[in-house]
Amino acid sequence: MSMPEASSRPVSIDGGTRIHYIVGDPIAQVKSPSEATRVLQDEGHNAIVVPAHVAPADLARWAAGVSLAQNVDSIIVTVPHKFACFHLCATTSGRATFLQTVNTMRRNPQGGWHGDMFDGLGLVKALQDKGFEPAGKSALVAGAGGAGSAIAHALVEAGAARLAVHDSDAARRHALVDRLASLGMGRVEHGSADASGFDLVVNATPAGMQPGDPMPVDITRLDAGAMAACAITAPAISPFIAAARARGCQTLTGIEMFDRVKDLIVDFLLDRPSP
Amino acid sequence: MSMPEASSRPVSIDGGTRIHYIVGDPIAQVKSPSEATRVLQDEGHNAIVVPAHVAPADLARWAAGVSLAQNVDSIIVTVPHKFACFHLCATTSGRATFLQTVNTMRRNPQGGWHGDMFDGLGLVKALQDKGFEPAGKSALVAGAGGAGSAIAHALVEAGAARLAVHDSDAARRHALVDRLASLGMGRVEHGSADASGFDLVVNATPAGMQPGDPMPVDITRLDAGAMAACAITAPAISPFIAAARARGCQTLTGIEMFDRVKDLIVDFLLDRPSP
Repeated sequence: MSMPEASSRPVSIDGGTRIHYIVGDPIAQVKSPSEATRVLQDEGHNAIVVPAHVAPADLARWAAGVSLAQNVDSIIVTVPHKFACFHLCATTSGRATFLQTVNTMRRNPQGGWHGDMFDGLGLVKALQDKGFEPAGKSALVAGAGGAGSAIAHALVEAGAARLAVHDSDAARRHALVDRLASLGMGRVEHGSADASGFDLVVNATPAGMQPGDPMPVDITRLDAGAMAACAITAPAISPFIAAARARGCQTLTGIEMFDRVKDLIVDFLLDRPSP
Repeated sequence: MSMPEASSRPVSIDGGTRIHYIVGDPIAQVKSPSEATRVLQDEGHNAIVVPAHVAPADLARWAAGVSLAQNVDSIIVTVPHKFACFHLCATTSGRATFLQTVNTMRRNPQGGWHGDMFDGLGLVKALQDKGFEPAGKSALVAGAGGAGSAIAHALVEAGAARLAVHDSDAARRHALVDRLASLGMGRVEHGSADASGFDLVVNATPAGMQPGDPMPVDITRLDAGAMAACAITAPAISPFIAAARARGCQTLTGIEMFDRVKDLIVDFLLDRPSP
């Protein structure tokens, strides 16, 4: 006797359903409403993840309004609201405070929102799921924006021995390198497009989302034994991932990364430890 | 080959799902999230009805907040917010304006909310579904509160030749009789607990929701040929309905009435004429 497929189970909603939002602009493309709702309901929770399409100028007033509904438990945050929502939180985790961004907010028992940020930790967990342990390894992160900062910070926190940041915006690169170095954990340095000599190379830039985009790093310098990871979810196989596979590298796609982010978010919503 | 049962179809939700709220205090008991969502999705709409538990003091700020989400199309309104939401609408239908209440708000193309009120019309449509045409008939409505006002108004608008209102609160009864009479449509008069001589007797009071409640009218005076209708949904068969059936009357329950109200609400949400 086998259990029915998770994907065939109907989503249910009634007057007692608890509400978790995902807010973004745009929002139609996000996967969380179906995927995270499925996880919540498969685990027996009467809860759904509801999409909210809110423009930046309206975000604070929208959040203040929905906070007043007593059956709203959390807000998952996506582009472009991760910085603004940090400032709507009464309390935040250490990593969210370092990054000044949140991707999830849940109710504090004493009122107000508690924010956390799982984009970087999701990449680390997904790497570990594939048998790649960042502790003691060297890593190059291309992109010092929101995704790159979260990923670089999570790799340093996971014990990377050497972390290099590559970004053509020197001021942005300097700011991230200096802040990561101030943690006093691993060696943090300025990187370049030269991907040689790293155990892990991560594309945290948008390069590869549009046809004709340049490669985020010099792919011809990528070591065949390196792990190549990418934060892009569309296309599912980015040009960087495709090129890394052609060189024989093990790879981690953005879809695999964000699937693990989703698990971390659900654990956070339910206030339980993540494996 | 047969189509699958409507009730077996899963509810779906994704980033592109359009949101319709139902707001109340409390909210866990309402049926609209499951039933109206089912109707919307069975008709091919990517839409769900989301419950919102909002206290009266928070209603205006909550509504202002959710109005800012671009994927929110309407708000269904239940107890105790039907009066307050009337004042949140930019425009209202004639019947909502007469009653100063709304049970549904949808977006105006020019912005703001347009409110309407279907509780009374739902009763009229449900009666017609059972072959009882109110036009030209006599009716006694017990209860001059929100539900009674909506029902009495809808019966007058449907062409009832004679409508009597019974309420022990004389001021409330006078106010409703005078306003209905000012429409200049049918004969409107003060009623009593004497249910004799009416083609239709409606219980629009809460009498019968709690064990030991008195009957809303003198049931021993109810004509066996009369139609007896009740706005109470719990219990499903109110003592008034049970007593009317024992006398041989045809009956209409609150569940049957609100099932028709739900259909009218869905037609309104989708901006299409009701049959």
